Amino acid sequence: MSVDNKKPAERADRVTIRTVAAHAGVSVAAVSKVMRNAYGVSDNLRAKVTVSIEELRYRPSRAARGLRGKTFTIGLLLVDIRNPFLPEVIAGVNAVLAPSHYQAMIGVGEARMQLETSLIESMIDYKMDGLILVAPRLPSEIITRFAAQIPIVAVGYHDSTADGFDTINADDQRGAEIAVDALLECGYRDIEMLTQLARAGHKVSVVRQREIGFRRAMQRAGLGSSAPITNIPLESPRREETIRKFLARSDRPRAVFCWSDIDAIVVMSMAAEMGVRVPEDLAVVGYDNSSIAALGLVNLASIDQSGRELGQTATRTLLSRIEGRSEAVHILQMPSLVTRRSLAG
Amino acid sequence: MSVDNKKPAERADRVTIRTVAAHAGVSVAAVSKVMRNAYGVSDNLRAKVTVSIEELRYRPSRAARGLRGKTFTIGLLLVDIRNPFLPEVIAGVNAVLAPSHYQAMIGVGEARMQLETSLIESMIDYKMDGLILVAPRLPSEIITRFAAQIPIVAVGYHDSTADGFDTINADDQRGAEIAVDALLECGYRDIEMLTQLARAGHKVSVVRQREIGFRRAMQRAGLGSSAPITNIPLESPRREETIRKFLARSDRPRAVFCWSDIDAIVVMSMAAEMGVRVPEDLAVVGYDNSSIAALGLVNLASIDQSGRELGQTATRTLLSRIEGRSEAVHILQMPSLVTRRSLAG
Repeated sequence: MSVDNKKPAERADRVTIRTVAAHAGVSVAAVSKVMRNAYGVSDNLRAKVTVSIEELRYRPSRAARGLRGKTFTIGLLLVDIRNPFLPEVIAGVNAVLAPSHYQAMIGVGEARMQLETSLIESMIDYKMDGLILVAPRLPSEIITRFAAQIPIVAVGYHDSTADGFDTINADDQRGAEIAVDALLECGYRDIEMLTQLARAGHKVSVVRQREIGFRRAMQRAGLGSSAPITNIPLESPRREETIRKFLARSDRPRAVFCWSDIDAIVVMSMAAEMGVRVPEDLAVVGYDNSSIAALGLVNLASIDQSGRELGQTATRTLLSRIEGRSEAVHILQMPSLVTRRSLAG
Repeated sequence: MSVDNKKPAERADRVTIRTVAAHAGVSVAAVSKVMRNAYGVSDNLRAKVTVSIEELRYRPSRAARGLRGKTFTIGLLLVDIRNPFLPEVIAGVNAVLAPSHYQAMIGVGEARMQLETSLIESMIDYKMDGLILVAPRLPSEIITRFAAQIPIVAVGYHDSTADGFDTINADDQRGAEIAVDALLECGYRDIEMLTQLARAGHKVSVVRQREIGFRRAMQRAGLGSSAPITNIPLESPRREETIRKFLARSDRPRAVFCWSDIDAIVVMSMAAEMGVRVPEDLAVVGYDNSSIAALGLVNLASIDQSGRELGQTATRTLLSRIEGRSEAVHILQMPSLVTRRSLAG
């Protein structure tokens, strides 16, 4: 426990990364390496620096205030908190940070541009070392402008032309194609996509990318003229109403591809209530392979984009940018299908 | 959008709450009232101050750095991020903050005391106006010490004797009693509790409180000598292994009360796989009434402690403490049972 008994403010205030370096008898760069758990740090160096950090009760967030030093804090901006995909991304971020002295501070932008802007500004004001933005709604120009002030990595944001910040994505077009191809292989031709009602709707969003992939796969199968996409509102009870209407349609398709498990699970649940059998009457493929999809009671086939891996890759990429890399990198991970009963009993 | 075109740092730096007050022609106290959306603010005052905030591009997080001013940011420390109860608490916090100029910044302590300590210290260093700690693992003395530096409200932390900080809880003892009473009423006598394997294990935790309530209700029914409690590890795959063993036991009880839906749902799912019928062979009651419990496919009876309301109450309580209240308040909300098929078909 690193809590002071008295006057923690005064004592911690004077300790900077330089004090730690002097106390440990090493260079400032060496302390920084230990703080970020850099590759190639010897056990001996780590032990020496860790002892000094603890003895001096070094608090980078305090020491760096008003100075040029690092706070060893990264900001993580999430689009919302209810999608079970996001805890996976956070777990990935934390897995990379845990062995270092970095910590993450999270803001939830709720897909509201004003709130996103205000949270990013605060994170800059707090002198965080860098930001990971997950599915931000802000346009690329604005993110580029922020990126001139602070290292930024965007996750779930498709802009491979950005040169001011990095992007880490699963290939969402490919993911949708994999889902459609699996349904086609099971013999379904009559396939509809349920998508998220657009709020911002620009092409960078994972949802739009999945729509593009859906249309392309349908086209390739000669079904391009009938590749219907239905919008599902994000909020209850309008989501449930729209899904109920979809299930009750006389021209309901034989198979459905959902942009996210959070909709696919509601589809399966309401189908059970309405006597629509899955997969006999309706095959369902979701997206994100959330823990709920894997439950025996649910058994939902789903595209896995490994949120945990996205979070890990994003964190490593951000740390390398914090360390000075300035050329943008754009990484695309390959998603895969997890087959379960909802696809073919 | 409140993004500057050039030199945002320089421009925003000089704007403080005093500048805003002068620009709007009102008092600093009036600006503060608008910022926190205080009761009784006229539409006229709100409009005037909002115009000034936008025109001057006031950024409290920047203006307050190194000064005595407020940052209009509160810190929210969560124990973990995967429990579906927590997004409800966050939604409650955001619902209260949304009409104000306050924002929340979240840290995830992962039930590790060292990480909790470090995040709280950073939030203090960042000069946040106050903290909401959700199910912290730190002992009361440490929280009290932090509370001397920053206003603190703890949620899901049972210490009604704390005089340095406030506590907001659902009555977890009562919740467990309600669950047991409902099972007794359905005719079950052979009831076991599945609880979380203790990490810190002190009495302040909601899990311990639920165990106390379970034992008391069983005792009252004359079943005190057989009120077995089984520990379930939090992490996969050990959680699943332990639950599988429980379900395979030859002396498996007829009914089970789970400390959280996250375990109850795994129980139901593995029961389905193993041919154990719910509720015919095993009745199940969970805790938190998460959105998954309500799914038609799951249909899990659960104790509802309204995380959203806890979040709202905690935020209002914190704001009143930030405004100067120093006497501690301890609020206990009453949970209720949501009956579903897992209790009695």
